[in-house]
Amino acid sequence: MQLAMIQDRIVAMAELGPAYLDRGVYFGDGVYEVLRSYDGKIFALEEHLERFRGSLAAIGIGGIDVEEVRRRVLDAFSKAQIGNAKIYFHVTRGSAVRNHVAEGDLQPNFFLTVTELDDDTQVKAAGIAVSTHPDWRWKRCDIKSLNLLANVLARMDATKKGCDEAILVDEAGLITEGAASAFFAVFGKAVRTAPLTGNILASVTRKYVIKGAKAVGLEVVEHSLTPAEAGEADELFIAVTTKDIVAVVSFDGKAIGDGKPGKYTKALIAEFRSFT
Amino acid sequence: MQLAMIQDRIVAMAELGPAYLDRGVYFGDGVYEVLRSYDGKIFALEEHLERFRGSLAAIGIGGIDVEEVRRRVLDAFSKAQIGNAKIYFHVTRGSAVRNHVAEGDLQPNFFLTVTELDDDTQVKAAGIAVSTHPDWRWKRCDIKSLNLLANVLARMDATKKGCDEAILVDEAGLITEGAASAFFAVFGKAVRTAPLTGNILASVTRKYVIKGAKAVGLEVVEHSLTPAEAGEADELFIAVTTKDIVAVVSFDGKAIGDGKPGKYTKALIAEFRSFT
Repeated sequence: MQLAMIQDRIVAMAELGPAYLDRGVYFGDGVYEVLRSYDGKIFALEEHLERFRGSLAAIGIGGIDVEEVRRRVLDAFSKAQIGNAKIYFHVTRGSAVRNHVAEGDLQPNFFLTVTELDDDTQVKAAGIAVSTHPDWRWKRCDIKSLNLLANVLARMDATKKGCDEAILVDEAGLITEGAASAFFAVFGKAVRTAPLTGNILASVTRKYVIKGAKAVGLEVVEHSLTPAEAGEADELFIAVTTKDIVAVVSFDGKAIGDGKPGKYTKALIAEFRSFT
Repeated sequence: MQLAMIQDRIVAMAELGPAYLDRGVYFGDGVYEVLRSYDGKIFALEEHLERFRGSLAAIGIGGIDVEEVRRRVLDAFSKAQIGNAKIYFHVTRGSAVRNHVAEGDLQPNFFLTVTELDDDTQVKAAGIAVSTHPDWRWKRCDIKSLNLLANVLARMDATKKGCDEAILVDEAGLITEGAASAFFAVFGKAVRTAPLTGNILASVTRKYVIKGAKAVGLEVVEHSLTPAEAGEADELFIAVTTKDIVAVVSFDGKAIGDGKPGKYTKALIAEFRSFT
């Protein structure tokens, strides 16, 4: 008799719920998005849905109507009644007995959560410390997929070092991005960040940082930098949906500037609020 | 109110079962093994458990007693009463609200299935066709993790081309391994395969192929090869737990040898049976 075991409990295969047969857990065979709201208003929903559409296409998951995803996001957000909410959702290729190539047409699995964002006022005011870690991720980081173990391991390493984010460094010795953020360095009146390639996620927040840079008097330079260069920057910051822009005040143990959020970073944070 | 949505159904966060909060699905934050039995006898259990122990350590999952895993494998296998069984099991870091770094100590999730292996007599007799695909996997393929989307995409591409396996080619133009198998090429009296590095899984079946090679008169050369070289081989074969050794008779559309399983491959298949 074909059977399964959950922890130490034996279950007939036929009795397994779809979550136990999800290709998400067997292969990370799915894609996701994270959105946030500011005071009851979801930020950049269209951009996130557009990127999600691209992710689905990139890994060949069909049978998902992105308009229906939009309705579900709005429905769940409205029911949750949370002003500053984090909205996470993913779609996996479906549930089936484990096999690299799914046999027949599967119904994709949709899953979403709406949770309350932590108040990050203090973090925003103080800035964060980051540490570097080798970029072990796969070669298609332009796809926002559920294969995130490299990100998790890098972030665990950062936590051990008392840091809040890991900055990933590729085999060429160049910074790609943060484990869960885009990464920026200010030198004089220019802000540098890695160009978008197959190994960089097209961050929605990054787009708004670039949009806001001009307004605060910064020229944007899309050119990768090394950890040594980052350590010498006037200011560093990360950009991530859930926290928008956060100053980096320590890089691999080295204080950046005077160890406090820099003037351009603070100006960008203020500018960003005008978009939300 | 914090809430979740499964397909189009809204659920309170507190009502979500552990499978919906599994770090396996959010991040692929887990490791796995696949075993098989031959006529009621599990093959190479100790080697698989030893590799599993290494995988758990490599990603820092504690709180799992591998002796208890052994007991569960034996218990489930014994209850299933399947002679030629495929035993799959994984352990994930646990279930929690999504956060790259888990807060507090989580209880790891153990999951196992015992299913019947397809009869592969025909496949074994005819050999298989393979096609190449860029190796998009992460940089720690020595860890048998649940981050397998690159493998899935490569295998889907192979299926589209009418092939049974994808052979992965790295950025240097060298074959690493199959999407779910080790890869070997016979030239004269030598069999070549990629050396074990951070980007190759230490395949248990590979070990037995190397052990069996001498007995059939083959010298083993651990040296990577290019697709062009593979196309010129006298014989090609893959090695994978569920099917042990399978001849490759077509490589990117080019017939290998006379398009039938070669003499050394057949000798190795016979030799392998003596190990089981």
